[in-house]
Amino acid sequence: MKTVKIGLIGLGIVGGGVYEAIRDNGKMISRRAGVSLEIAAVCDKDEKLLKKAAAGKSVLRTQSAGDVMKRKDIDVIVELIGGVGAAKNIIISALRHKKHVVTANKALLSEHWKEIFSVASENRMFVNFEASVGGAIPIIRAIRQSFVANNIERIYGILNGTTNFILSSMSESGCSFNDALKMAQEKGIAESNPELDISGKDSAHKLAILSLLGFGQDISPADVYTEGITGIKPEDINNAKRWGYSVKLLAIAKNDRGGLQLRVHPTLLKSSHILSDVRGADNAVLVKGDLADESILFGKGAGREPTASSVVSDIVEIAKHIAFAGRENPVEYRLNYSPGKRNISRIEDLKVPFYLKFSVIDKPGVLASISSILAKYRISIATVAQEERREGEAVPVIILTHVAKEGNMREAIKKIDKMEYITAKTVVLRIEE
Amino acid sequence: MKTVKIGLIGLGIVGGGVYEAIRDNGKMISRRAGVSLEIAAVCDKDEKLLKKAAAGKSVLRTQSAGDVMKRKDIDVIVELIGGVGAAKNIIISALRHKKHVVTANKALLSEHWKEIFSVASENRMFVNFEASVGGAIPIIRAIRQSFVANNIERIYGILNGTTNFILSSMSESGCSFNDALKMAQEKGIAESNPELDISGKDSAHKLAILSLLGFGQDISPADVYTEGITGIKPEDINNAKRWGYSVKLLAIAKNDRGGLQLRVHPTLLKSSHILSDVRGADNAVLVKGDLADESILFGKGAGREPTASSVVSDIVEIAKHIAFAGRENPVEYRLNYSPGKRNISRIEDLKVPFYLKFSVIDKPGVLASISSILAKYRISIATVAQEERREGEAVPVIILTHVAKEGNMREAIKKIDKMEYITAKTVVLRIEE
Repeated sequence: MKTVKIGLIGLGIVGGGVYEAIRDNGKMISRRAGVSLEIAAVCDKDEKLLKKAAAGKSVLRTQSAGDVMKRKDIDVIVELIGGVGAAKNIIISALRHKKHVVTANKALLSEHWKEIFSVASENRMFVNFEASVGGAIPIIRAIRQSFVANNIERIYGILNGTTNFILSSMSESGCSFNDALKMAQEKGIAESNPELDISGKDSAHKLAILSLLGFGQDISPADVYTEGITGIKPEDINNAKRWGYSVKLLAIAKNDRGGLQLRVHPTLLKSSHILSDVRGADNAVLVKGDLADESILFGKGAGREPTASSVVSDIVEIAKHIAFAGRENPVEYRLNYSPGKRNISRIEDLKVPFYLKFSVIDKPGVLASISSILAKYRISIATVAQEERREGEAVPVIILTHVAKEGNMREAIKKIDKMEYITAKTVVLRIEE
Repeated sequence: MKTVKIGLIGLGIVGGGVYEAIRDNGKMISRRAGVSLEIAAVCDKDEKLLKKAAAGKSVLRTQSAGDVMKRKDIDVIVELIGGVGAAKNIIISALRHKKHVVTANKALLSEHWKEIFSVASENRMFVNFEASVGGAIPIIRAIRQSFVANNIERIYGILNGTTNFILSSMSESGCSFNDALKMAQEKGIAESNPELDISGKDSAHKLAILSLLGFGQDISPADVYTEGITGIKPEDINNAKRWGYSVKLLAIAKNDRGGLQLRVHPTLLKSSHILSDVRGADNAVLVKGDLADESILFGKGAGREPTASSVVSDIVEIAKHIAFAGRENPVEYRLNYSPGKRNISRIEDLKVPFYLKFSVIDKPGVLASISSILAKYRISIATVAQEERREGEAVPVIILTHVAKEGNMREAIKKIDKMEYITAKTVVLRIEE
């Protein structure tokens, strides 16, 4: 049985998981794949991790990725250090050294995919990246292979476990954003610096990758309109619930006549929608194609073993190719991407229903002036609720609108927020139907 | 760009869908795959379908599969006639003629996989069968490729759309099994002879295929303990609901210390379980692996376009292989299967909680005698409910038990059903926790 040799760069949470998965499940994997996997080199800056990981004698242990590249017998480089600096150099260098690449690095891929895949293509090497989106969920393979015959109409995803955990906790216990974030940090679900997650940027990176694959356009994360969840208050989640909605940080890509919408923002989603059932740190992706209709893939979006599961599946795909078809990859570096094709619609042209929470001084005529400004911008009201009445004091007024144009909404809210009876910035959330 | 030629055998619902998918989405598929698909021959007994399907001049139209085999330029045979007779001959003949095979035929594969894959292996041809389980849901690829590094612990599936539609309808409208079946037939969801679906056999075929792939054992549909849904009454669904359960026809494969459980039967599943949300004719499969943990794949389990979506993805996989790696398939005929390995546990050894509905003459002491028989077989009661009281008349008594052994339960119920105050066969349903 052919043995394929792997250089594992980065021995942190995921790298350690990959090491253990191959060590513990390696025999079974060989039996299934018909090819044997061997970790021939491990690389990390952290000497303790190096010592711990590589117990076998024949394994190269090094703090320098360059040492791994020099090893001619290594077929596949697994990059798991993350970040867009050193990781990029490692991947490019590996491809130039005619080594296939497996990575889970969504930030890097979403920003630099064009360069990376161009070098991969020149060198006829694989770059596999199943673990970059949705952890253990096989969404990359599903879009690239299983739905290959479909015109993709939309991709909806809960792509970030941290924010889903925070929103789920706020919904279940009524706690504040800060308390939920603290809980997530205590459980190791949020990092000490949670910015990338709570800002929605991590979701935008992942949506950019899925959209690139699904829609074949020249997409970067900057094309994704992105709002985070820091402004969400428990009362917004409660109000949403009362009307039968959950609040989710949804990553949405929708291809319709107006162009391709790419957006990540807190979204009111019908409680009966199956994505509303995604709780805690789980992830889920809905894909709608013209043939397959709606498919939904749920699972663990992060974590040591789930991510390792996808990384190893990527290694196996390459290993089988090497063992049975040859050292080079003639086809899989192809992305479904038409150079220069861009049909991305502006967020101002988005048409959705909205949830609005106004903070107003409760006095006669206030609702009438709000409504008349909304009407001026052709925003029609579906429901109004004002629970508390305290004449002369600030109270919340909730309005759900019918479908309205984002650009109009922005203009209307700008006007409304300048009015004297408005005591705080209006909360504007989009509803997905 | 290389063109791969296809012989399409069977032009019914799915075959027609495949024809149209390649006709309508062919250009996009080529752009994505880097290889062009051409339907070079169509074959069906029905002349009308033949005439309708093949408008192009260069397409061979024939009523005889043998004519398609003779065509040396055809690389892939797509078998979509169904059944286990002619279909088997076509597949074996195609493989011997060195043609790769794509099929959606679960009855045939689950019964004859050993012979089919042995001929495929001799001839180094692919047999792809993504559409055989779960329609558009990429569950075969997920188990074979994406979860390749996992020890699979369990596979739970709602694998039959017809029975899920019937049970959903009964639950939503309170109608009888017969009325729900009639509705399904009117909507084209059930066939005029629904036996294969409602008996659970179709689910058993599919579970056998998934289990073969997931657990690598020598499994046939006869190894799957199978109960259908014809005995389910609306009141059972209502009773289940009251205690927070839905009733689903679940296909369950669970690998634990006692062996591999393989069973298809109506199951009480917590309403909060995500599989309880699978309504209508949709399908879903939950896979739990030691690394990936639980993943769930939802989608359209049947139908013209969803099935075509999977069939074409199988063709594309083969076409890419032919175009870029060569005419023969050196690896993909491997199934994850250890010859002779069988560790299938007997249904009598199953340990689950049960739902029991007794029909009893309502008189003092009846519950005491039932309980004492159950106690004798070490079956302990979790909840008892007797809604109606009509002294001396037949009333239903519902008991939910704690975990009990199936063998004991069968003995106990045999005894109880012989007692004079029992007016009808006791309804026994298993609960999945």
